[in-house]
Amino acid sequence: MSRRSSKPATTLEVTCRPKNSSFDHSAAVPARLVRLGAHVASALDRLALGALQAGLRSAPVRLTLWDGTACYRSSAPAVATVRILDGGTLCRLLASREMAFGDGYAEGRIEIEGDLVRGLEEMYRTWTRAPHRRASMWSLHRLASNTVRRARRNAYHHYDLGNDFYRLWLDRQMVYTCAYYPVASMDLDAAQIAKMDHVCRKLRLQPGERVVEAGCGWGALALHMARHYGVSVRAFNVSREQIAYARQRAREAGCADRVEFVEDDYRNVTGRYDAFVSVGMVEHVGPGHYPVLAEVIDRSLDPSQGRGLLHFIGRNWRQPLSAWIRQRLFPGAYPPTLAEVAEAVCEPWNLSILDVENLRRHYARTLAEWLRRFEMAEREIVQRFGTAFFRTWRLYLAGSQAAFTTGWMQLYQVTFARGSDNQIPWTRADLYRHDAPAL
Amino acid sequence: MSRRSSKPATTLEVTCRPKNSSFDHSAAVPARLVRLGAHVASALDRLALGALQAGLRSAPVRLTLWDGTACYRSSAPAVATVRILDGGTLCRLLASREMAFGDGYAEGRIEIEGDLVRGLEEMYRTWTRAPHRRASMWSLHRLASNTVRRARRNAYHHYDLGNDFYRLWLDRQMVYTCAYYPVASMDLDAAQIAKMDHVCRKLRLQPGERVVEAGCGWGALALHMARHYGVSVRAFNVSREQIAYARQRAREAGCADRVEFVEDDYRNVTGRYDAFVSVGMVEHVGPGHYPVLAEVIDRSLDPSQGRGLLHFIGRNWRQPLSAWIRQRLFPGAYPPTLAEVAEAVCEPWNLSILDVENLRRHYARTLAEWLRRFEMAEREIVQRFGTAFFRTWRLYLAGSQAAFTTGWMQLYQVTFARGSDNQIPWTRADLYRHDAPAL
Repeated sequence: MSRRSSKPATTLEVTCRPKNSSFDHSAAVPARLVRLGAHVASALDRLALGALQAGLRSAPVRLTLWDGTACYRSSAPAVATVRILDGGTLCRLLASREMAFGDGYAEGRIEIEGDLVRGLEEMYRTWTRAPHRRASMWSLHRLASNTVRRARRNAYHHYDLGNDFYRLWLDRQMVYTCAYYPVASMDLDAAQIAKMDHVCRKLRLQPGERVVEAGCGWGALALHMARHYGVSVRAFNVSREQIAYARQRAREAGCADRVEFVEDDYRNVTGRYDAFVSVGMVEHVGPGHYPVLAEVIDRSLDPSQGRGLLHFIGRNWRQPLSAWIRQRLFPGAYPPTLAEVAEAVCEPWNLSILDVENLRRHYARTLAEWLRRFEMAEREIVQRFGTAFFRTWRLYLAGSQAAFTTGWMQLYQVTFARGSDNQIPWTRADLYRHDAPAL
Repeated sequence: MSRRSSKPATTLEVTCRPKNSSFDHSAAVPARLVRLGAHVASALDRLALGALQAGLRSAPVRLTLWDGTACYRSSAPAVATVRILDGGTLCRLLASREMAFGDGYAEGRIEIEGDLVRGLEEMYRTWTRAPHRRASMWSLHRLASNTVRRARRNAYHHYDLGNDFYRLWLDRQMVYTCAYYPVASMDLDAAQIAKMDHVCRKLRLQPGERVVEAGCGWGALALHMARHYGVSVRAFNVSREQIAYARQRAREAGCADRVEFVEDDYRNVTGRYDAFVSVGMVEHVGPGHYPVLAEVIDRSLDPSQGRGLLHFIGRNWRQPLSAWIRQRLFPGAYPPTLAEVAEAVCEPWNLSILDVENLRRHYARTLAEWLRRFEMAEREIVQRFGTAFFRTWRLYLAGSQAAFTTGWMQLYQVTFARGSDNQIPWTRADLYRHDAPAL
């Protein structure tokens, strides 16, 4: 299916395109609206709509109300139209933009016509250009106070929705993090393998080495490292369902002796390793817990030649995640800036940052592919979880794609080593000797 | 000449290698010492020597006094022996380790026998392993309060020693920053060209683009960009002598129409450019001035597609530069952590960090080459500047090499772009298409 909303429209669109327009209030109330019991937009409703549209500045996104009243400020053609279908939703949008928008869309009280992703991109571009106030560290800590117990609950909230659900739209290996497309023609399956390979190469894994992975998802990377790089891996994850699945895969692949999946929090990592790797977990740690993560990394690594890689969603500036994403999708999540991670994780333990790569455009492409597959599985997902769930996740995937396309979010891979280690690579040329994964 | 000190020894070495030794006080006072008027080390002198040696922990560096009294704690053979030749120097070492060591060596009151660089490396390794206290931002700001006037004076102090002086030991292009050795067999001249090429490729320069360079040294990079990448460059530097030299080179190379050298502070950069580049200047800016540098970068860059590169000496943790280096070599200098630059320069202006590369081992090699050439020019340098100057600079070059070898210092190249720019490169593979510079 296309990204165009599949719900039947519950309002009529009143076309309005005067150059310096603000309102076009259709005089005639459509008969269907009267049937639905929606009142004609009042002067106050129109004022509220104007305030919302002002927040979008010159973004080519049209806002309309239930009776067709439209507001539009851009001189360019609109890429999407956001229809607000009742007065309560309009009020809530004024009071709490993110929550009301997300929940309103999920519950069908807001419809988006046109290109969902492009519409969201235009919104992000508007917000990115606006001057931003740096959030206080206190507020960031409070938002992501992830105790061991809460971290487990958070993971359950998102990752234990059932492996069958994720199998519908992830790649064959079930990798739920940014893929890497060394060549443009690659498909998602190959790009996820290429990503795992890119990570292994950055870590310069050697056969026989010991690796610890914090936050291992369904185990794809741990298995890839063991099978293709000859290392032994201990991989930690608090999600029971993911760990069970990963163990089963290890047995099937005949490498259960070299890959141990541990159902536990990263804070409980024990042992010494040659390399520490974490792909897609730092976002769930929360800034207040970075010192603990740093301490775990330090005590896990070989004291003289240990090295590691953190792959995480980040930002260019400090700001909490959207309230809606935090409450509905990722409780306790916070995407840090590079400086936050460098300061809190690397500085206290004399870890040298060797390499940072920003793969945000790869994540935009990964998300586009996930969204396409997710929408193809609409019928199955709606049957199992309901329409509101489907729409919540569609908005989350589309919004995430837009966030990475517009630079609202970043994807960092940070490679580091012990400060005194001179076995670090001389250049990065070896990472690019073969563009295709070495399988 | 070798790195072994060329000065005739003024003391006799008393060999001492008992396993858990502390002192070996030779009973007989050497006749030459009596002639020099040095007294036999007292109990207090020996106590002071023990305290100094304790600071070196188990480093294989022997300390001896003027009369041969030696102190050594390592079970490994010593790589170097530090001879303290008078009681005044011993006192000063206790009171102010860095200043007394640097000045003492410069003035011949301290001699280092054995391998100077390896001896310094062992000292750095000891200090790196010691727990470090993070310096307060206040102290760091105070140390590097570089007003425009002071910045000019600081540059004069180091860079206006005469082009003839630097020509004695730099490469042919007079590049006084870390070189890049894509292949191990490269010589310094080729490695400096490779570095300039690496920078240009990271910036993805296109013919016809406008580039601004802050802190351009003798102009090699500006000329390289214009000649080999077809861009026009405005390059800023406060050093009069360097700018005069650079202008002369531009005229000789026939590209004075495309490269403008401006004798001015980076804070006075005007105009809009496609790219901002600064190689080896951030170290001289001082953390209190990063917000100004950030503002200069923001106002210089194209608002939608601007990008830039900062190449600078950094550290894994926050700490002022050695007092001796600050007072004798680089007034006002401060090597920041990656987090400090990312936070102060990139976060406020929504600049996306795309790529960070740490080239510290390349700087160690560059410095080894500089030191070799510098020592070969000893006679000329001593004639012109005196022995103390020669020894000051030898210690600075050797110490810098040791600092980069041991991870006491880092060399970062940080590439960034406007947060909303989607013209950023898809991967970094193009940087490694040709390992040899594309000339």
